[in-house]
Amino acid sequence: MKNITIIGVGLLGGSIGLGLRAAGVDCRLTGFGHRRSTLDRAAEFGAIDRVADSTADAVAKADLVVLCTPVGVFEAMLREIAPHLPSGCLVTDVGSTKRTVVRLAETILPGSTHFVGSHPMAGSEKRGVEYARADLFTHATCILTPTAGTDRAAVGAIEAFWRSLSMQTVRMSPEEHDAALSDISHLPHLLAGALVKMQAEGSLPLAGKGFMDTTRIASGDSGLWRDILLDNRDNIKASLSRLKSQLTAMEKLLDPRKGEALASWLAAAAGRRDGLAQRKLREISPE
Amino acid sequence: MKNITIIGVGLLGGSIGLGLRAAGVDCRLTGFGHRRSTLDRAAEFGAIDRVADSTADAVAKADLVVLCTPVGVFEAMLREIAPHLPSGCLVTDVGSTKRTVVRLAETILPGSTHFVGSHPMAGSEKRGVEYARADLFTHATCILTPTAGTDRAAVGAIEAFWRSLSMQTVRMSPEEHDAALSDISHLPHLLAGALVKMQAEGSLPLAGKGFMDTTRIASGDSGLWRDILLDNRDNIKASLSRLKSQLTAMEKLLDPRKGEALASWLAAAAGRRDGLAQRKLREISPE
Repeated sequence: MKNITIIGVGLLGGSIGLGLRAAGVDCRLTGFGHRRSTLDRAAEFGAIDRVADSTADAVAKADLVVLCTPVGVFEAMLREIAPHLPSGCLVTDVGSTKRTVVRLAETILPGSTHFVGSHPMAGSEKRGVEYARADLFTHATCILTPTAGTDRAAVGAIEAFWRSLSMQTVRMSPEEHDAALSDISHLPHLLAGALVKMQAEGSLPLAGKGFMDTTRIASGDSGLWRDILLDNRDNIKASLSRLKSQLTAMEKLLDPRKGEALASWLAAAAGRRDGLAQRKLREISPE
Repeated sequence: MKNITIIGVGLLGGSIGLGLRAAGVDCRLTGFGHRRSTLDRAAEFGAIDRVADSTADAVAKADLVVLCTPVGVFEAMLREIAPHLPSGCLVTDVGSTKRTVVRLAETILPGSTHFVGSHPMAGSEKRGVEYARADLFTHATCILTPTAGTDRAAVGAIEAFWRSLSMQTVRMSPEEHDAALSDISHLPHLLAGALVKMQAEGSLPLAGKGFMDTTRIASGDSGLWRDILLDNRDNIKASLSRLKSQLTAMEKLLDPRKGEALASWLAAAAGRRDGLAQRKLREISPE
């Protein structure tokens, strides 16, 4: 893949460019997006080699197009690039939800191109190319969401692409992806927000490191998150309902006669969290 | 205060000793507790100068006794030291809940001594003197919970004590303390636990940095937390109920026709969290 086009060169798009350069991948990086000033800054930072002047200029010679625009403008961008994509071109994205994105891509993009949905699980509560980092994706997981109609060779090529940024890759259906992410990412975001919002003003100065860590993700961009949450709302409502059941069950243990069961509940959570942390450590530095 | 006795020399007790030494406070540090091996290790690490052989030996000459035992054994320890405390001795603690602790101390300790409840808001999900650090309390807040019956000079002396460890101090009633901590510390702990427990096994490998940060506090010691949660259960139930209301209100915004209100909800949470983070930064490095 010689010619790679990044559409939307912010935190994620910029980090892809910087990461490919740092990994020594031999390719030409073209950047495109709605704001010329952002693109020029991305070129200055070395995240892209050149800024495209038009949609046609951006994708006409591309071997791979990576869509890094917010989920909310995804459909418009697909319609914009579709007529200009060369035959055999690979297209992927970095969206946090996958059912809608994959369905749109499969509907809008020409049959001569190959779309594979991607969700590189890395990011920051910061936004913009100035926070882009060559190692943003290193050791993180990228989920690929092929469907029955997806070209197998294209899936392998997109996997190789993310692995060149030192990511691990896993495959699941768009439906499995959205359900799992609802639990592990979208619900935690909402909980962090609710936890911040429910505090009395007088309690805030008492916030310690624990509270700050627990609520860090609440600082994310509200526009991006609105799009994610609305797109995945059916799953999120189900996640919320399961969380509420957990809380109701736990609340019954707040009883001095149930101290042992409460300690078990806490120990099970602690054990599971510790096991996960250790597994993560092993992934980063396997023996 | 020449003679300071630390009862329970684990993470917090050990960090007090190391912190006093690092600050160059001129005092003699005596350690006491149930496990001789822990005390010997604390002495090796330099967290205490000597290990007391008995309760009488530990407190008979103390100017200040700092109780660093878990909330669950607090009553027994108070009864153990009460007969041996010298007249005029100051006593404080590091417990995470304050109503019960203060009531017990005021009931059990002799009138010739002065108890002031303390809650230094620092810690770790780790436990034990091997994790003790001279700077554990630096820049953190210590809440003092005097009551109508508390000696004013004693409150000032205990404030000076925590400030010698570079802490900020605030005063509030035990009731105010327990209500505020329920929201800002105890509920977040339960939420982190519930969030870990509700995950399907298949989702766990997809956990990113956000999930790990959000759930870090779930790794705390289950016995310590059981005691805290049971002791403060009335407040925690009220906090849970308010959180559930927040979640129910938010759930109604998961509707494409309410995108603007959802974005506002998210932006308000993000803004409040960002403001808090900036305030914390200013506290650590004021201009």
